[in-house]
Amino acid sequence: MNPNISFKRSLRLSQARFRFFVLQKSPPARNMSTEHKFVQAPHKLLVIPGPIEVTDEVLYANAHPSMSHMSPDFASVFGNCIRMTRNILYSKDAQPFLIAGSGTLGWDQVSANLLEPNENALVLNCGYFADSFADCLQTYGAKVDQLKAEVGGTVKESDIEVALKSKKYKLITVTHVDTSTAVLSNIKGVAEVVRKVSPDTLVVVDAVCSVASEEIQMDSWGIDVVVTASQKGLGTPPGLSILVASQKAIKVFENRSTPVRAYYASWKKWLPIMKAYEGNSAAYFATPPVNLIYAYHASLAQITQGSVSLEERFAAHKDASRRFKKAAEELGFKGVPLSENASANGMTALYYPDGLVASDIIPRLLKKDIVVAGGLHASIKDKYFRVGHMGVTVVDPKRGDIDNVINALTETLREAKATKV
Amino acid sequence: MNPNISFKRSLRLSQARFRFFVLQKSPPARNMSTEHKFVQAPHKLLVIPGPIEVTDEVLYANAHPSMSHMSPDFASVFGNCIRMTRNILYSKDAQPFLIAGSGTLGWDQVSANLLEPNENALVLNCGYFADSFADCLQTYGAKVDQLKAEVGGTVKESDIEVALKSKKYKLITVTHVDTSTAVLSNIKGVAEVVRKVSPDTLVVVDAVCSVASEEIQMDSWGIDVVVTASQKGLGTPPGLSILVASQKAIKVFENRSTPVRAYYASWKKWLPIMKAYEGNSAAYFATPPVNLIYAYHASLAQITQGSVSLEERFAAHKDASRRFKKAAEELGFKGVPLSENASANGMTALYYPDGLVASDIIPRLLKKDIVVAGGLHASIKDKYFRVGHMGVTVVDPKRGDIDNVINALTETLREAKATKV
Repeated sequence: MNPNISFKRSLRLSQARFRFFVLQKSPPARNMSTEHKFVQAPHKLLVIPGPIEVTDEVLYANAHPSMSHMSPDFASVFGNCIRMTRNILYSKDAQPFLIAGSGTLGWDQVSANLLEPNENALVLNCGYFADSFADCLQTYGAKVDQLKAEVGGTVKESDIEVALKSKKYKLITVTHVDTSTAVLSNIKGVAEVVRKVSPDTLVVVDAVCSVASEEIQMDSWGIDVVVTASQKGLGTPPGLSILVASQKAIKVFENRSTPVRAYYASWKKWLPIMKAYEGNSAAYFATPPVNLIYAYHASLAQITQGSVSLEERFAAHKDASRRFKKAAEELGFKGVPLSENASANGMTALYYPDGLVASDIIPRLLKKDIVVAGGLHASIKDKYFRVGHMGVTVVDPKRGDIDNVINALTETLREAKATKV
Repeated sequence: MNPNISFKRSLRLSQARFRFFVLQKSPPARNMSTEHKFVQAPHKLLVIPGPIEVTDEVLYANAHPSMSHMSPDFASVFGNCIRMTRNILYSKDAQPFLIAGSGTLGWDQVSANLLEPNENALVLNCGYFADSFADCLQTYGAKVDQLKAEVGGTVKESDIEVALKSKKYKLITVTHVDTSTAVLSNIKGVAEVVRKVSPDTLVVVDAVCSVASEEIQMDSWGIDVVVTASQKGLGTPPGLSILVASQKAIKVFENRSTPVRAYYASWKKWLPIMKAYEGNSAAYFATPPVNLIYAYHASLAQITQGSVSLEERFAAHKDASRRFKKAAEELGFKGVPLSENASANGMTALYYPDGLVASDIIPRLLKKDIVVAGGLHASIKDKYFRVGHMGVTVVDPKRGDIDNVINALTETLREAKATKV
């Protein structure tokens, strides 16, 4: 074989990248059309509070041919991801860290990079995820105090004020949306209290279940760290730890007097890498999850440059949430959050009506191709279930996802009650 | 809309999953045929030492529709991944850990779970990756000694024996294939020395660049830990940290007297999760990289149940490596490894011939759609380049990848020399 011919052909093929299409043979696809593009396989509707349904474009990007993590093409995609991540949080200069891992790795990053042994951390606890974040902080040697809300409630700002006045805390953590309870904390209010009472204390937000489904104004609200992950409001498959640190947090990190007690989670290793990629040039510490970065890029482009603005996206989450919660209430379900103000817009947690249990509801929904999640908060684990409504499920009304879930829940409840008569 | 009709249709669609196909419109695909399956986009041939070229089936699995990490379907796929990972290492009962992260996270796992502060570790150093592993061990409080080989060489077994007799080491680390030099260490020989001189010392193999391209008999050779990742011989996109620990290592972990000083990397958290998934039931600590697990599953199935046996796979790597190295030598390139015995089979590191530099070779290969990697080892960084030949590139001869690389290199050298006349 003449290599020149082969190479020229191969080059031509490269230039033709993306001129591909998937046809579904049978049965017809939802959007049966002449569109020449990848269409994901039919599947049950996933409405757990993450991972969530993702678009065909995102999945196609996740199937990108192998690329060198050191190539200029990839570096520019990575750089765009860093910039778009910052935009979603309305920040001018905060520093994103995009690292292969789950959201949990963000807790390690906070604990290892921002705290030194025996420093104090205050954890606002609305459920399972604050318990775990506190556990992580202690693992790295922090002295942790917790303010625990009742199940379904949030921590009172007056209690936060008292705690901050009683002791010097290096940082305070608040779970924006606790995925175990669907409770929404007022992070803007928490940050205000901190700025008033203890302005040096870093405000760390666990926003795994809120970024891109709830508004977060990092700079103007005074948030120092946003910990999140790819598989919820950001509409990407799981596997990417996303953390954004304010320049104030970065300074605190840079001024630490003891070495960072982690390797893979160390910002000392990652900061130069993130800066290099943002400058569109590649650098190496550990191999990034290349395909997932392409997928994240596709989702970020849809979120920040799509037909739905960021503000409209938040409004769509609010609308869908209100509609689903109202329908569930009318069916006789009671929400776990104690007030509407403290209710997440990207997910709902519902107690089973009297006389019904998980096995009455969840398997029946599954039979109707609707996948929801069981309970997670230890004290009420078997008494409730959780439904996610984030990303394309709420932003693309043509899908009819919310209606399908409401209809399936209506039918399920009718069937379940019928068996109890 | 009648929800029942919609649900029935949706169920029908589910059952039809995978009855899909991709057609390439123009230009014709490599395997132009009537096959009804996903075909990845045309792209430059990636022959760096990882990430590597992956199959269409693996990429299609990476584009799997979103699935709950708690679903029985996913649990069974995860369980299969655990079992097949063990099979590739010829182990009966070693414990795999599959965690979202890069190969580097495996170093944190070793350092945080197997060592307690001030315990001794001996690092056999053949290049860049041993420097970094030592750095990681020290970060977690270990006392590290290193035996450094000359560039291109391996550490002598007699030196290892002397070191092991001089001090009690909790563990010894050896890089199976150092990706910075393409040097292959004799891990079977190292393990024999350890068993003879210091049988309690754990043998930890950094096998990021060797699993599935070099033979590793974990049980019969007495290897305690294999640290690897998805994107090299295992033929999967990057983003999955894969670590396999012998039962002896697990016991050492279970008997530690101080707490594990990491959270995300803690086996205390992950061991019950891995056991649950292996029993085909889901458990939660941190969200696994669901799509990547599907992709890894597809690749493992090809590796362990495909038409090429594991033994034939290792032989194919040896053959391709010999052929490529011989061709390169005939062109006047000299390999970095000092002996054939110490040369990796999944990659090659070549010094530029006299008078030529990186910019003479790498951009010309790139113009011919061949992507290779530059130097990485600090002391010779600008004097050599690296070529990977792992996975489908060597196992599927129909692709002609090795010929293409040899032809491109031949042509490149001719062009480069012509400009120097």
